[in-house]
Amino acid sequence: MPEDHYQAEVATKFATEVAVEDGEDDAAQQATGRPRTMTSTAEIDSTITHPGSVRINVKGAFIVDTPEQPGTPANPSGTGNSYHETKDIRLPNHTAVISHIAVDIGGSLAKVVYFSREAHSNDPGGRLNFQSFETDRVDDCIEFMRHLKDKQLALNGSKPGELCVMATGGGSYKYYDRIRQRLDVDVLREDEMECLIIGLDFFITEIPREVFTYSETDPMHFASPNANIYPYMLVNIGSGVSILKVSGPRTYERVGGTSLGGGTLWGILSLLTPAESFDEMLDMAAHGDNAKVDMLVGDIYGTDYGKIGLKSTTIASSFGKVFRMKREAENEAEDTGGLSNGDDQNRRQEQQKLDQTSVSTSSQPQQPPQPRPTSSRASELARSRFSSADISRSLLYAISNNIGQISYLQSQVHGLSRIYFGGSFIRGHPQTMNTLSYAIKFWSKGEKQAYFLRHEGYLGAVGAFLKHQPRNWGRRGSFEESR
Amino acid sequence: MPEDHYQAEVATKFATEVAVEDGEDDAAQQATGRPRTMTSTAEIDSTITHPGSVRINVKGAFIVDTPEQPGTPANPSGTGNSYHETKDIRLPNHTAVISHIAVDIGGSLAKVVYFSREAHSNDPGGRLNFQSFETDRVDDCIEFMRHLKDKQLALNGSKPGELCVMATGGGSYKYYDRIRQRLDVDVLREDEMECLIIGLDFFITEIPREVFTYSETDPMHFASPNANIYPYMLVNIGSGVSILKVSGPRTYERVGGTSLGGGTLWGILSLLTPAESFDEMLDMAAHGDNAKVDMLVGDIYGTDYGKIGLKSTTIASSFGKVFRMKREAENEAEDTGGLSNGDDQNRRQEQQKLDQTSVSTSSQPQQPPQPRPTSSRASELARSRFSSADISRSLLYAISNNIGQISYLQSQVHGLSRIYFGGSFIRGHPQTMNTLSYAIKFWSKGEKQAYFLRHEGYLGAVGAFLKHQPRNWGRRGSFEESR
Repeated sequence: MPEDHYQAEVATKFATEVAVEDGEDDAAQQATGRPRTMTSTAEIDSTITHPGSVRINVKGAFIVDTPEQPGTPANPSGTGNSYHETKDIRLPNHTAVISHIAVDIGGSLAKVVYFSREAHSNDPGGRLNFQSFETDRVDDCIEFMRHLKDKQLALNGSKPGELCVMATGGGSYKYYDRIRQRLDVDVLREDEMECLIIGLDFFITEIPREVFTYSETDPMHFASPNANIYPYMLVNIGSGVSILKVSGPRTYERVGGTSLGGGTLWGILSLLTPAESFDEMLDMAAHGDNAKVDMLVGDIYGTDYGKIGLKSTTIASSFGKVFRMKREAENEAEDTGGLSNGDDQNRRQEQQKLDQTSVSTSSQPQQPPQPRPTSSRASELARSRFSSADISRSLLYAISNNIGQISYLQSQVHGLSRIYFGGSFIRGHPQTMNTLSYAIKFWSKGEKQAYFLRHEGYLGAVGAFLKHQPRNWGRRGSFEESR
Repeated sequence: MPEDHYQAEVATKFATEVAVEDGEDDAAQQATGRPRTMTSTAEIDSTITHPGSVRINVKGAFIVDTPEQPGTPANPSGTGNSYHETKDIRLPNHTAVISHIAVDIGGSLAKVVYFSREAHSNDPGGRLNFQSFETDRVDDCIEFMRHLKDKQLALNGSKPGELCVMATGGGSYKYYDRIRQRLDVDVLREDEMECLIIGLDFFITEIPREVFTYSETDPMHFASPNANIYPYMLVNIGSGVSILKVSGPRTYERVGGTSLGGGTLWGILSLLTPAESFDEMLDMAAHGDNAKVDMLVGDIYGTDYGKIGLKSTTIASSFGKVFRMKREAENEAEDTGGLSNGDDQNRRQEQQKLDQTSVSTSSQPQQPPQPRPTSSRASELARSRFSSADISRSLLYAISNNIGQISYLQSQVHGLSRIYFGGSFIRGHPQTMNTLSYAIKFWSKGEKQAYFLRHEGYLGAVGAFLKHQPRNWGRRGSFEESR
């Protein structure tokens, strides 16, 4: 049950955890000479809580590393379409009531962020919880929030009516009336892009061990918080992709985007593979071989195209081998005298009738009946020639590479060298991060750097969460005033 | 039969054709005030034949506009995988023998260009012929060239052994030995990128009414030849995409590319639709509605996202509606108690066995047997929910938009404002050109211009054709010397 989940989690004691890491880290630094990536106790303690900007005491905030486990289904129906992220953020110094929930409803996923105190703990503070739902089942999400509201009101001691829901993303418009009606609360809508960068700023500046760079040899190299984080670029990969240039706090511009995003991967693979979830697709991709689907430079040249620096293993055309295979499937089907496993009984019966007719009206010697594969049969045959894993890997590469290239080009046009990749498309998947990282490094000749986040899917939801202004505060001291 | 095809064509008399157009054109200009797009007789006559650069007399070259007709199958097997382009180029002043054929063998298509005199005509000169084959059937292409060689040698009066084949593209390496062996001729290989720009330069500077801009209201607005054509960008869209920055004659750099090209469209649609050729896919796309497959801004927001200028009809996520539909299909299949049209008889039989077993070993009341859709069945159900036309349109948009955006960004990074789109992906298809044109106009805020070509697929083949140096010429007066 969702409401018991966070109570069951072990909130590793903050001081202990950091002390151990510190020791490890200093030793690692001495050994390798690499810059320190982990955050010291002192650094965390001195993390600046921007005065007046956030009404939550984030001092000493840290990510609770619970042992890796599959996403825990959180909605009672158990249909597996809702996941509680295990990487909660603990706010040890925040003791005040936070009487709101934030939700970011995108095209494919609805992301919920909420604060909870720890009922069975003597520690002060509490934690930020992260939960996501498929937007198709937005009613489950609303039901979850309703449940949460009842629970939170009791736990936090808020009075009924005090809780409000911060909402962002397209669904905050589309489902506005429904959320208000079912929850019987205020729903404050916030701009999606603004929430994204507020959330990202928070993660960059306030949460240690959140932002990291990826490489195959060092898959999670944490980035030290930087005093001056601007300007940067945010590439948010959800169903589609938005690219934002951020010049300062809340100074941003959506400079571009592409419709080839997570929804495209999810959509095409839904049609071509048996995968039932995005994670299943990523798992399949991890075991696939895109060279069986993609046309490589070597397939065209038989060798490298050295003159312009294209290796024989470079992907020349994504899915470029497929058409050839379809042809071969058709030819073989013709050669073997038809299809033993036709899917369309009616069509087969019609074919039999035709064959019988021609036999009965002609005494000429005839070819044995050879139903030529109809086209839909041919595409099915072609599909059967490719493994789902290979197809998944090919498409994951194609989309990640493409986002990487567009991001690099946009960063070049706008003179930005730090590129943060957010959004639920990434999901901490090594191949995705590797492809994006590699693309940025390759195109920029090593001059630009790709950064990732452990809560990559929750930028908008956290941004909305942080924008909360309790109703009776007025303008004074509110978050908005700090602009 | 291919060797008779060009003889049967009517080579419209040059002077007459131009005179008529001139009259129309002057009138049109007076009426609309728009710049003249058609080429006058004088202009054509004065078209400069760069001395020493090309061994063909291209003076007065023009495109033979034969009545629109479907591609004429040219190979004897009649499998419809080879097409003779009807837009030949007539070279009225060229009378010398041209004893070579050029072929550009790419990942998906092999393009052949050759010169032919007109046997049954009293006019001088002859024409450049354009023919393409699927690379999978490269043997048909080689057979065609062998046939052509025999025919050409007789027609042109060359001696056996004088003919040579200019070859470019990856296949010129991969199939080098095979071509030499079967044709028993010299095969001279030329660099693919260099051929592309030599071909494009030729089309831009020498062939009137070849280069045009596209808009829905003026789908073929011919561009006047410009004295200074450099710098420009060439985006060549074949199986994959290459982007070249061209600073001067033969001064070029491959600045980028993407693996999402024609091979991707062809490959994915081979798996998802019954289309058997690229043209069939384009035809389907012309009648489709991508809004049934793509997730639009309006699907997410229920309205525009006006703040950042995204209309409700903007595509937020290509194929973004698919996953939802798959879910619905699964749910309905469960609701209706199973699948009435299972494609896998074995599986169905197994299911029946299972059902029988469970009935016979249990006396408990049972649910009627309800085979839960297996995943592959679910993806098939999902596929059945989408029309091939809608899917084709969605993917055509996605790929064209993406190429348009990357091209714009590359042109921005490299400071280029004229962008030529070549390659066999385009095929004169209005939606493709419209999407590319619109993307360039949209992203550049009208500052850059997309150009198209009537022989867009033959840049490389024509470039290779023009690079021919007869074996006994040595360096003097050769094409190479003009650098």
